[in-house]
Amino acid sequence: MQIITSIQDLRAWRKAAGVVAFVPTMGNLHDGHLALVTEAKKHAEKIVVSIFVNRLQFGQGEDFMSYPRTLDVDAEKLQAAGVDVLFAPNEMELYPHVSQHYNVEPPNIQNELCGVFRPGHFRGVATVVTKLFNIVKPDVACFGKKDYQQLAVIRGFVEDLNMDIKIVGVDTGRAADGLALSSRNGYLSEAERAQAPQLYQALTQMAAQIRSGRQDYAKLEQQAVKTLTEQAWVVDYVEVRNTHDLQVAHAGDAHVVIVAAARLGNTRLIDNLEIHLEG
Amino acid sequence: MQIITSIQDLRAWRKAAGVVAFVPTMGNLHDGHLALVTEAKKHAEKIVVSIFVNRLQFGQGEDFMSYPRTLDVDAEKLQAAGVDVLFAPNEMELYPHVSQHYNVEPPNIQNELCGVFRPGHFRGVATVVTKLFNIVKPDVACFGKKDYQQLAVIRGFVEDLNMDIKIVGVDTGRAADGLALSSRNGYLSEAERAQAPQLYQALTQMAAQIRSGRQDYAKLEQQAVKTLTEQAWVVDYVEVRNTHDLQVAHAGDAHVVIVAAARLGNTRLIDNLEIHLEG
Repeated sequence: MQIITSIQDLRAWRKAAGVVAFVPTMGNLHDGHLALVTEAKKHAEKIVVSIFVNRLQFGQGEDFMSYPRTLDVDAEKLQAAGVDVLFAPNEMELYPHVSQHYNVEPPNIQNELCGVFRPGHFRGVATVVTKLFNIVKPDVACFGKKDYQQLAVIRGFVEDLNMDIKIVGVDTGRAADGLALSSRNGYLSEAERAQAPQLYQALTQMAAQIRSGRQDYAKLEQQAVKTLTEQAWVVDYVEVRNTHDLQVAHAGDAHVVIVAAARLGNTRLIDNLEIHLEG
Repeated sequence: MQIITSIQDLRAWRKAAGVVAFVPTMGNLHDGHLALVTEAKKHAEKIVVSIFVNRLQFGQGEDFMSYPRTLDVDAEKLQAAGVDVLFAPNEMELYPHVSQHYNVEPPNIQNELCGVFRPGHFRGVATVVTKLFNIVKPDVACFGKKDYQQLAVIRGFVEDLNMDIKIVGVDTGRAADGLALSSRNGYLSEAERAQAPQLYQALTQMAAQIRSGRQDYAKLEQQAVKTLTEQAWVVDYVEVRNTHDLQVAHAGDAHVVIVAAARLGNTRLIDNLEIHLEG
């Protein structure tokens, strides 16, 4: 595996690389990321993984400075996984003028769900992913469904700006107790970690009720918030949305997703669960 | 010359095309456009010209509906000029959802100069050119310096979003009397056409004074506005700016451009003149 840090070197490598699949990450890799690599290998001969902790997508008071940076361990994992290139640019390489002047601006979905709590986050994601796409020029790019709203935004701008890239969503990796794999799980205390699967449990209980025919989504959402709050979570949201465009789901919609974000102590966790109902 | 109207067909052609230079236009081609084609041929074996009147960059009350559409004549000119592909998508091909949800958002320069008078214009330009770039995937793209602010915006997002495309600015084509070539010149009455070179004359007079050492740009701007107003123009702006970033020029700046926009009757004309001072 080559480790490339400059855009110029990456472009030089790209010229002779053929079909490329790309997995953008912020590093601190876990099995969820490695599942993205496994998926990527089904689509291309050459695999590029990027590691870049993107300042643009962190808000005031968020964990940009403390976000875990574990490049050496990450590189070993990617080498073992058969990745061809680890692209690890530094801040100056991607933001040479410090400020990013031109941005990819998502529509109002960026201000809903996680966007309510993280203003500017999805603009920052859309912009850095566009930059990385323009550098790596992948044929295929793989993203986890764990960041469901992020995946929707990426699918959105790829289609709307006519990028010639196939976007593949990959199922969320989970611990044995159901907790969605996330770099931020490392922030949890032992007690919080033991409690953390409650979030996915709330989603599965809600999904069981929807599958059994309930369509009073607002009431189910309120019940899930109440349950989690009683378990000492601070809930940002639990909502039923359409899988297609992430708009609010209505009774009768066939393909919905329960999306949720909630905090345990100082750690904010997100999760979601897709439900495909019979017509 | 092939005329291609679908994105899918363009992509299929592109795969085997090698190095491509691209000239995006809104059609109604004049010698200024053909100079772009001539320049493009210096940079690549294959030349793509697009013709698309982009609704996104027209504001309320502007001339989107009446903008001249002359595809057959344009195609003849491009064929004669040795263009390989004319890409002429229709509205549904570029905006299948009618609305464009994701946009390339320029920084505050979009709200200055022409942006004051055409809100949303440069967002529309940046977004459609990004879409066309993602479809055509050119190695080089040529734009006229006549639309100087547009060229600055395009250079800006190409650099800032890491697009791997060389942007070439081409000197403004002019009629024998100095009037900058523009599709909108066709809106002028005979009397207006006779008067129209006054705009460029005002710029050349201002430039002569700057070259002779005057650096009181604000005063020169006021004089030019006064002169044009007395000649019955409605002046939107005459300003001296830096060539590099189009910020306001100051005494001592070596590379400046006088940019101007003014209306004769119902027709809005723009022009500019670069000045490179000795250090």
